[in-house]
Amino acid sequence: MNDHCVATYRLYDDRADFHKKAEGIAVGLTVGSWTDLPEAKKADMQKHLGRVVSVQDHPSDIPGERCADISIAYPDINFSHDIPALLVTIFGKLSMDGRIKLIDVTWSDDFKQAFPGPKFGMEGVRKLVDVHDRPLLMSIFKSVIGHDLNTLREQFYKQALGGVNLIKDDEILFENPLTPIDKRVQVCMEAAQEAEQHTGKKLLYAVNLTGPTFSLRDQALRAIEAGANALLFNVLSYGYDVLHALSQDRDITVPIAAHPALAGAYCSSPHHGISAALALGKFMRLAGADLVLFPSPYGSVTMPKEETQAIREALTTAEIGVASSFPVPSAGIHPGIVPLIIRDFGTDVVVNAGGGVHGHPLGTAAGGRAFVQAIEAVMQGSSLDSYAADHEELRAAIQAWGVKQ
Amino acid sequence: MNDHCVATYRLYDDRADFHKKAEGIAVGLTVGSWTDLPEAKKADMQKHLGRVVSVQDHPSDIPGERCADISIAYPDINFSHDIPALLVTIFGKLSMDGRIKLIDVTWSDDFKQAFPGPKFGMEGVRKLVDVHDRPLLMSIFKSVIGHDLNTLREQFYKQALGGVNLIKDDEILFENPLTPIDKRVQVCMEAAQEAEQHTGKKLLYAVNLTGPTFSLRDQALRAIEAGANALLFNVLSYGYDVLHALSQDRDITVPIAAHPALAGAYCSSPHHGISAALALGKFMRLAGADLVLFPSPYGSVTMPKEETQAIREALTTAEIGVASSFPVPSAGIHPGIVPLIIRDFGTDVVVNAGGGVHGHPLGTAAGGRAFVQAIEAVMQGSSLDSYAADHEELRAAIQAWGVKQ
Repeated sequence: MNDHCVATYRLYDDRADFHKKAEGIAVGLTVGSWTDLPEAKKADMQKHLGRVVSVQDHPSDIPGERCADISIAYPDINFSHDIPALLVTIFGKLSMDGRIKLIDVTWSDDFKQAFPGPKFGMEGVRKLVDVHDRPLLMSIFKSVIGHDLNTLREQFYKQALGGVNLIKDDEILFENPLTPIDKRVQVCMEAAQEAEQHTGKKLLYAVNLTGPTFSLRDQALRAIEAGANALLFNVLSYGYDVLHALSQDRDITVPIAAHPALAGAYCSSPHHGISAALALGKFMRLAGADLVLFPSPYGSVTMPKEETQAIREALTTAEIGVASSFPVPSAGIHPGIVPLIIRDFGTDVVVNAGGGVHGHPLGTAAGGRAFVQAIEAVMQGSSLDSYAADHEELRAAIQAWGVKQ
Repeated sequence: MNDHCVATYRLYDDRADFHKKAEGIAVGLTVGSWTDLPEAKKADMQKHLGRVVSVQDHPSDIPGERCADISIAYPDINFSHDIPALLVTIFGKLSMDGRIKLIDVTWSDDFKQAFPGPKFGMEGVRKLVDVHDRPLLMSIFKSVIGHDLNTLREQFYKQALGGVNLIKDDEILFENPLTPIDKRVQVCMEAAQEAEQHTGKKLLYAVNLTGPTFSLRDQALRAIEAGANALLFNVLSYGYDVLHALSQDRDITVPIAAHPALAGAYCSSPHHGISAALALGKFMRLAGADLVLFPSPYGSVTMPKEETQAIREALTTAEIGVASSFPVPSAGIHPGIVPLIIRDFGTDVVVNAGGGVHGHPLGTAAGGRAFVQAIEAVMQGSSLDSYAADHEELRAAIQAWGVKQ
């Protein structure tokens, strides 16, 4: 539809007539009341009236309760074309109305026009690091709180030497006197250049944008001025609209990686909140995230695989009509998992590791190399075990962590 | 504690050692690792290390799973003193780690210093409307979408004539060509003055602040310039930090009412997300909301009474050390519920009604008067039925909706 946004909900109830409920939502969240309106007024209000698109029974996981997926079309004319207005319209009051989860949204072409999407996107990020035919490799600082600039620089340099394409700040590293953002960027970017002499690889450093909302733009510009070539952003603690504003800003000339911090508060309940595919997929991409981190299905902080696949699809499907965001499944990743990542996510993925880099038996730089070798092995169609025969770092990683089937 | 913020979580697990889990959180979300650190480094890092305050078993509502409430103290030194940094620290990654709900936060005195709290608060709002000894009365527009300025003015005037103290926009009324914010404020404030000639009552009109985050301040100033004497704000679609910035802003010289839109996405699951007392109570007050709407325990969109009581406590307890926020339990309110509201919330409450005003058998203005009379009855110690004997509007309301026991 060109002038309606469609929201799909999963509802549970022990006795609701789901069709009646759907009608109540379509009217209640748009014109307020309908049957009471005089006929003349109805003609005026028709263009504001919500409409039930579908009501489909769905298997219920709650004993004694029925479940249905209902889709409602909301006329664009009712709300301004920003994400807060859309969310308040489709799930403001409704989020509090019993067991209900917002599972999908389809935007009208009109609404989408306000959203150019990621400024770099997957292709833009690939160009910046000059890697076009395989997964990228990202690593995370091991520990950051309480460390000084020298220690961070050293950690950074070792990661960079391992041949990673991106290094990201920890999401809990905020503006602080030991490692203020401009100083941190400066020493780490120097380390990046030094490492590039050895690796020949371009490197993006996603520095964490933090602090008061109304200072974020200035902080981003300061970081870029100091040499930052990427940003990390805890989107959900600020709102999608702030990501949208930053990503659209002409002076913010670097890619933005969206961190999923707080996502569990929205996404984890099966009966409430917002689906991961929407919260970490569609909305992140619409708001302009160039890369999106989300829990991998492999580690200890896990997300079910069908949800991670739905996020990947939302970040990359051509349907949305803006540049793709790079999927970054995170947590619990070691080199022996790389074949699974590529099997599950394809080659348009960022392999992202922390412990799997720093915990390598031969050290951090070797940890990076083991991942590089694992990616090479898969791209060449070799098994990790055979490739490890003449690649020491991969061999040591496999001895430490095995190969996950 | 003066230099730690303490977060309390409710965790579920079928086999976890909750003490070990708590230790893991205290270390993992602060210094990252501890036992591996050289002794000399431990001395440096001690001040950054999180600490387990308590681990208490709690009855579990999930068959086969145990439950515990654990409290962790996070050193202030680890995060900047803003709500996004605090939330990302205490519940960023952790929100995604299985069944866990953030149920309480206690801030250090240091952290609180960055938060002056509500600019008006309950007492300030009382002064503005000159009502000091009883609940205030707020009403909501009946329907707003698709209506023009004349229709809104007429709705507004009828509500004002009924003697309400506050009128709020519907939260789904966004910036739009039919009723743009400055025009809307102008005609409604004219209607307020006209009504004041009849009622002798001061009236606050909370106009809905919407649109792009980085334009909200300008929009607020434009509304105030046009005569707005209060603002409504969908806090959760923008983040607490934006409310904090607006409420602290010297040029925003009017009270802010926080709307709970989207709160269900955080608060409704018993096993995930953030408790209502925190999301709609403590954080709203800390961030500076002068009034806070939340689902009443009486209507169709309900919240369990123990949660609404916990919100009330959070908004008004002296412990927090900033001005109180006015509790506004909303939805499903008619005059026959007023005695229950005052029993449950005391007189420091705003009675807020939409259908219970506009649906009155004698019309909107009579609807407001019926509420005024119900409040008078309770304040005088009369039963509604006896007071209704010589108060026509209250009598008609009771005939329509009864008195809820």
